[in-house]
Amino acid sequence: MEENYNVGRLFKGGLAILKKKLQDINFAIIGLGLIGGSYAKALKNLKVKNIIGVDSNPIVAMMAKDEGVITETCIDSMEALQRADVIICALYPDAVTDFVKENVQNFKKNIIFTDVMGIKGDLLEEVDKFLGPGHDFVAGHPMAGREGQGYGQSAAEIFNGSNYIVVSRAQNKEENIAWLKSFAYALGCKDVVEVTPKEHDEIIAYTSNLPHVMAVALVNSESMNSNSKHFIAGGFRDATRVADINVALWADLFMHNRKNVVAEITKLQKQLGIWERALATGDREGIEHMMSIAKEKRKELFNAKNFR
Amino acid sequence: MEENYNVGRLFKGGLAILKKKLQDINFAIIGLGLIGGSYAKALKNLKVKNIIGVDSNPIVAMMAKDEGVITETCIDSMEALQRADVIICALYPDAVTDFVKENVQNFKKNIIFTDVMGIKGDLLEEVDKFLGPGHDFVAGHPMAGREGQGYGQSAAEIFNGSNYIVVSRAQNKEENIAWLKSFAYALGCKDVVEVTPKEHDEIIAYTSNLPHVMAVALVNSESMNSNSKHFIAGGFRDATRVADINVALWADLFMHNRKNVVAEITKLQKQLGIWERALATGDREGIEHMMSIAKEKRKELFNAKNFR
Repeated sequence: MEENYNVGRLFKGGLAILKKKLQDINFAIIGLGLIGGSYAKALKNLKVKNIIGVDSNPIVAMMAKDEGVITETCIDSMEALQRADVIICALYPDAVTDFVKENVQNFKKNIIFTDVMGIKGDLLEEVDKFLGPGHDFVAGHPMAGREGQGYGQSAAEIFNGSNYIVVSRAQNKEENIAWLKSFAYALGCKDVVEVTPKEHDEIIAYTSNLPHVMAVALVNSESMNSNSKHFIAGGFRDATRVADINVALWADLFMHNRKNVVAEITKLQKQLGIWERALATGDREGIEHMMSIAKEKRKELFNAKNFR
Repeated sequence: MEENYNVGRLFKGGLAILKKKLQDINFAIIGLGLIGGSYAKALKNLKVKNIIGVDSNPIVAMMAKDEGVITETCIDSMEALQRADVIICALYPDAVTDFVKENVQNFKKNIIFTDVMGIKGDLLEEVDKFLGPGHDFVAGHPMAGREGQGYGQSAAEIFNGSNYIVVSRAQNKEENIAWLKSFAYALGCKDVVEVTPKEHDEIIAYTSNLPHVMAVALVNSESMNSNSKHFIAGGFRDATRVADINVALWADLFMHNRKNVVAEITKLQKQLGIWERALATGDREGIEHMMSIAKEKRKELFNAKNFR
């Protein structure tokens, strides 16, 4: 991977353009789980007037409406979708295509359709097949989240200071891409970057999928036993936090990004091999060198963002 | 490793025995860095009357005295050590033997000597060579810490809710082992366990050394570049936190535990190999199985301690 993602196209000026009328846009949020619920709560905070919320569990949707987080829901019919200017589909990857297929007849003629999938791959084209010509699917991936899952864990604040990846394609309208970027800033995100679907999946295999593989692998090591808990400190706790994983969601993410994740595991094993050799030969200088480099890189990563 | 560490000997009743007179014990703390400074601050909070503090940097010792964290220091002479009943040596592993060699003539005839080293190995016997017959070296490893290093980062609170590993040997007096356990509880630790040096080093290779290797390896992957920071979320942040590492200290720890750490890397690679095969063959069930097991284990680890 070259360092040529379109970070130069960071779009920092757009917020004002949209801010005035953001409140008047009709939003529909599909799936009111941790991420979808967080969008709804953030939109509510932004004083958006119409927020249509849909969830496969009608009780969740009713609760969100009762709490005033959404203004309208679709229990018996999906007709309310006909009023949406922007549809944010916050479903698991494998559920998005089916949702579009079954509901596209209720989409307005011209809308921005966006998603939150942590994988893009061929899924975007799968969805495109069912969309109309005026339905611009500008993909997105908010790098935001927290422990747990479900509406109860959702919070407007998850976007604060987060990264938001806009995954654009040749057919997307420039103004719709620009709008999604502005919207991400309005949610409170700090960095908004634009990449292609291929770039997205390659990068995410490293920055997101791999840490999850590592956490699961560490916990599943043969060395883990019922006494381990007496011998852990912050390092182990942090390294394993994401092992408390949403299995259904992550099975989708891993299955659609298999090749890239294998490539990242191979690169990690290369690093572990360097460690093994340095330890086996008692190469103190080599060990110090690896640590010094990592320390600098880690500081650069997070001091730059003041994000610990 | 079998599940036979002496966790059954958890010593929860001892606190009251010592609490009354803890204040009257003369302590010496050697090394006022993050860990040593934290002991001194915790002892001060516990109203210990005499806390002798020593640091290779006299300015640090003077500052600690000025702040009232220690009551006495040794700038020109180490004679103050002659009053210490308990010496807590909070130096890096490779500095402990030299300290004892050079200062044992100032130790009282009968003392408890303890350390904080994250590795025991042959170092305990190295130190023993220079100790007198009444100097009982009961080794310890507080599983406590925080980011950064040095006196400025020290805090009494690092012990709160932490694990404390007492590393006992056949020659240690039972009452001194019992005292160190009580002391750990007095500091605020939640679990105190007793193991042999061999058990300690094997277990720590997994619970402490390995997560540090993993964090360094992840940051040092070829996939890291100057744009990576735009694509990270909490998972990457947590997985790499300890890559901001104290290089000199960790070089000591790794060099003295090489064989065990290599064994742990091998076990981790076995898990990564299972991931690679499951991904390569598209074995969704296998991936879900690994994640489900890890999720349960992770919950058990931390829900039991209510420690996230």
